Amino acid sequence: MEAALRILDDLGLPDLTMRRLAASLDVQPSALYWHFPNKQTLLAELADRIVATRPSVDAAAEDADWADSVRAEAAALRDALLAYRDGAEVVSSTLALGLGSPETVDRLGRAVARGGFDAETSRRAATALLHFVLGHVSHEQQRLQYDSLGVLAAGDSSPLDEDDPAAAFAFGVDLLVGGLELSRSRR
Amino acid sequence: MEAALRILDDLGLPDLTMRRLAASLDVQPSALYWHFPNKQTLLAELADRIVATRPSVDAAAEDADWADSVRAEAAALRDALLAYRDGAEVVSSTLALGLGSPETVDRLGRAVARGGFDAETSRRAATALLHFVLGHVSHEQQRLQYDSLGVLAAGDSSPLDEDDPAAAFAFGVDLLVGGLELSRSRR
Repeated sequence: MEAALRILDDLGLPDLTMRRLAASLDVQPSALYWHFPNKQTLLAELADRIVATRPSVDAAAEDADWADSVRAEAAALRDALLAYRDGAEVVSSTLALGLGSPETVDRLGRAVARGGFDAETSRRAATALLHFVLGHVSHEQQRLQYDSLGVLAAGDSSPLDEDDPAAAFAFGVDLLVGGLELSRSRR
Repeated sequence: MEAALRILDDLGLPDLTMRRLAASLDVQPSALYWHFPNKQTLLAELADRIVATRPSVDAAAEDADWADSVRAEAAALRDALLAYRDGAEVVSSTLALGLGSPETVDRLGRAVARGGFDAETSRRAATALLHFVLGHVSHEQQRLQYDSLGVLAAGDSSPLDEDDPAAAFAFGVDLLVGGLELSRSRR
């Protein structure tokens, strides 16, 4: 796992192959399959490690406002994804494959539920938050990667570029949280 | 463009190469570079075609509520992305490269602005909406693709799976729109 995370961070997801991982560990590729039935399982374990680097907002937020907890969970998830190259892509592929720990979305759901929302609303809001987080961070990481590859022509700016990506991210989370607040006030 | 869209739809983005496109047109790859300086430019043109298939919500919505216009724009964008295999990935890569038409995000921004929001708020809200749309549809399309490749084990379900993806999408858009409504009522 440590070797795989190192390759991910140094070279990016497309270059994280079982062959390269085996070479970096000085073993035959077949030895890896003793631990992981396939590459998807390896990526799922990586995804779990990446999101597990989130600080424990749950515990710290016992007394905090539910909306602040949701904001803190979303920001912690963004930080964790940004900490590894292609982190958002590793996690979104894993979720699409139906693999990885349910904790990724469940922590968001618990923060929402503390606002008194029913289980179904909390789950759907957590899912919407997760899609927003993955969409946002995936864009940030693609920009970084294209920039480092030198494929962005000088002066090329995306219509989605932000001077302050963290503030733009928080603005989006605030809208989603605001939507929940509005639905609560209308009950 | 038509040949490229056909390859995209039949084989997916990873198999859309300049070489394959040239072969499908019975020309040398070098002939393509006369029209497109590189593959990125070709993908950007594809992205613009994909989002341009959106029906004109703008015109139809003159009398509609601004919030309904935003919902209609978001839904139209989702439909356009879903209409082509890997559509969300083509559009998100293009935006990350700083290429493609600003119309993709500007149409969302105009719908928001009709609610009386200032230019900066409209732009940021449109960007947040776009990240949500791309995150959501990209997940939907990855699920479809993994399913068609048979890499989803029987019974594998993502924690993000929805019985009704269109309703789950609309729920997320409603939260973002609700956040805008709340910020308006607090002004």
